[in-house]
Amino acid sequence: KEDLSFSAPQPKRQIDNKAKDEEVKQLQLDFTYGEQVEPKFETKVTATPSFSDVEKETPYVEEPKDEIKDSLKRLRAIAQLQLTYIIAESDDGGFYLIDQHAANERINYEAFMKDVNKGLIMREPLIPELIDIPLNDQLRLNEEKFETLTRLGIKLEHFGGTTYKISQVPVFKEDYDEKVYVEDVLNQLLHSDIEDFSNLRHYAVATMACKASVRANERLDLNSMQYLLDNLLKANNPYTCPHGRPTIIHFSKYELEKMFKRTGT
Amino acid sequence: KEDLSFSAPQPKRQIDNKAKDEEVKQLQLDFTYGEQVEPKFETKVTATPSFSDVEKETPYVEEPKDEIKDSLKRLRAIAQLQLTYIIAESDDGGFYLIDQHAANERINYEAFMKDVNKGLIMREPLIPELIDIPLNDQLRLNEEKFETLTRLGIKLEHFGGTTYKISQVPVFKEDYDEKVYVEDVLNQLLHSDIEDFSNLRHYAVATMACKASVRANERLDLNSMQYLLDNLLKANNPYTCPHGRPTIIHFSKYELEKMFKRTGT
Repeated sequence: KEDLSFSAPQPKRQIDNKAKDEEVKQLQLDFTYGEQVEPKFETKVTATPSFSDVEKETPYVEEPKDEIKDSLKRLRAIAQLQLTYIIAESDDGGFYLIDQHAANERINYEAFMKDVNKGLIMREPLIPELIDIPLNDQLRLNEEKFETLTRLGIKLEHFGGTTYKISQVPVFKEDYDEKVYVEDVLNQLLHSDIEDFSNLRHYAVATMACKASVRANERLDLNSMQYLLDNLLKANNPYTCPHGRPTIIHFSKYELEKMFKRTGT
Repeated sequence: KEDLSFSAPQPKRQIDNKAKDEEVKQLQLDFTYGEQVEPKFETKVTATPSFSDVEKETPYVEEPKDEIKDSLKRLRAIAQLQLTYIIAESDDGGFYLIDQHAANERINYEAFMKDVNKGLIMREPLIPELIDIPLNDQLRLNEEKFETLTRLGIKLEHFGGTTYKISQVPVFKEDYDEKVYVEDVLNQLLHSDIEDFSNLRHYAVATMACKASVRANERLDLNSMQYLLDNLLKANNPYTCPHGRPTIIHFSKYELEKMFKRTGT
């Protein structure tokens, strides 16, 4: 007998990024050259009140202001730096450094979130997976936490002793490591301060996005770099990875000229 | 009848760069990321007391400290930025921006100075060149200034009215525009505050170096960029162009990581 619990869609709210934003601003006081490209719009999460027979959560919708991204639209990848950053130039005369991993995380995060917003579809893992949950942790796995896991698309069946079988995982368009996903979410659920479901889901999806992304120290050819840039700029919020780290650092033409004292001042 | 005047070699002295250096330091207070690579040795000019039948001036000898340039030795050009800067990486994990014009100026300046130090050899211009010197300027062209010109390898003959014939120019290994050189030096001699011969010679050679250098907005392929870098790093003072502008801006690995908040702090 299935225990699919539904949650009422929640009202409009802001994602709590205040603490993070303050940290960002403090660090930026040090920047004279190379400004992090700052998102100039607010992140809005709006609820769509609809139910279905699959899990449906508050859609995560960010509303970008197109005029800001316009300046980024014609980024041309020109080189990979230290196998970690993409260097791009644009018609504005400046240049951009892009963290290839953070950029890919942002792209994957939004793609996964789109899946989640459509409503989670669950399936059995492709390969039967067993995980180990120590007794201490089993004691923490109360009814409420099982329900939370279900809302994240995860179902576990006690297999005997400390062993559990992963009987259901969410379907994402992109491949991912199901066992790593389950272990990570479970760990977060049992051992972190994150209580709010929305934040836990954010964590889970960001984790997936991270695992699925190109790493630092991976060689990319110019086409792959350009592909990454093009997709980053299609994201609603291309400026940070889901963990809040900058994806793009911009050096303006003026900054470049000032560094080399070409400004004539 | 030739009026070749000789000047006694001058004693050790420092090139007066104090004003420039102070300006540099003030600008650098603004830098958090992207430090100008600072020369950590002093510029020394030493005199070689020797005469010959060609003009021999105080040799311009800069003594570099090799351990400083060691860190620059393995710069690899990876891209040209905005047709103006070379982007290079090195094993230190950071990256370098190089102003292609300023870098080439430095290279040419030292090459020309080497010629000058060997002793100026003079010859007639390849193509007979006439220049115009307005009456006002002719009045300023006293004996002393003619002597200064001769020490710079330039001889002028009055041709009639305001017209002068360039009868001798210095020989440099590299080609240069003789007329532009003469006009520029003459203009500086007659209309600037530069009285000191050594500074005037510096100005003249720097001007030649500038004219002979690759400009901004010229496309370079990777080989040409690497060639420029390799030669820049052979210079005694690769860090600034002869006018004191930076040639190289360095971003360390740490600075890169800090920009992208990869430092874990």
